[in-house]
Amino acid sequence: MDTLTLDGQVFELARATEADVPAIVGLLTDDAIGAGRESADLAPYVEAFHEIDRDDAHLLLAARDEAGTVVATMQLTIIPGLSRGGTKRLLIEGVRVASSTRGSGLGTALFARAHAWGVERGATLAQLTSDKRRADAHHFYETLGYEASHEGFKLPL
Amino acid sequence: MDTLTLDGQVFELARATEADVPAIVGLLTDDAIGAGRESADLAPYVEAFHEIDRDDAHLLLAARDEAGTVVATMQLTIIPGLSRGGTKRLLIEGVRVASSTRGSGLGTALFARAHAWGVERGATLAQLTSDKRRADAHHFYETLGYEASHEGFKLPL
Repeated sequence: MDTLTLDGQVFELARATEADVPAIVGLLTDDAIGAGRESADLAPYVEAFHEIDRDDAHLLLAARDEAGTVVATMQLTIIPGLSRGGTKRLLIEGVRVASSTRGSGLGTALFARAHAWGVERGATLAQLTSDKRRADAHHFYETLGYEASHEGFKLPL
Repeated sequence: MDTLTLDGQVFELARATEADVPAIVGLLTDDAIGAGRESADLAPYVEAFHEIDRDDAHLLLAARDEAGTVVATMQLTIIPGLSRGGTKRLLIEGVRVASSTRGSGLGTALFARAHAWGVERGATLAQLTSDKRRADAHHFYETLGYEASHEGFKLPL
């Protein structure tokens, strides 16, 4: 567990546990674009949590504020691959920071932690996709050094 | 192994083996955008191949023509996740089809096989990113039903 002190606020960043699932789903739902895609039934989320948690290729992170409330989350996955000289990738999915803590530097601290986790596991490229409507998020990713060099295609199966 | 007969040409589609690595690297290198990112040293590719091959979350596919030449490849990964109601994703990386076989329907057949593999493993969303300079590839993905709804961000670590 990491303790982050950002502008006088203290956050704790740790591997998520099953007990965090309802709060993480709350963050996923408290989102203009994501809200309509989430469900009131927690069972599929708990099942997904266990699939993530039992595989060392994944890390689901939860950040808590001083009151113990989960205020941010992200999911990391290490993906080996042949392209780019056998580059291992760090895939970042499901990034959410509670609107109450935006501007605190927590998002930047989360990404620093994510990148360090990836580098420790041999990743030399981080990647994520972000809905084209999330202009503020795109600006944030660019300040971190990310380049929107690719189109992100999705297809429901 | 699947046998595909497309417009009179016969292709065999199978899980790649270590013996296919040099040919797959050849496909990755024979690409205007990818060429400068690949290496003449096969060792990191062989290492990456074994990391992919030993984890059931991944499938590296190789398609061969009647002469036994590897003419197409793609890498598939199943990623569990909390967002979108606990949706499992099929991530597609490293898609290459030899220029000699483009237009044969092989790319479409490869994607059909990839989607079926994902569905068998519970995936309900397929995703991939494609360099913004690959206009022809984007048109192809759109004909398959993919939507370029997201920006694809990358950051070297």
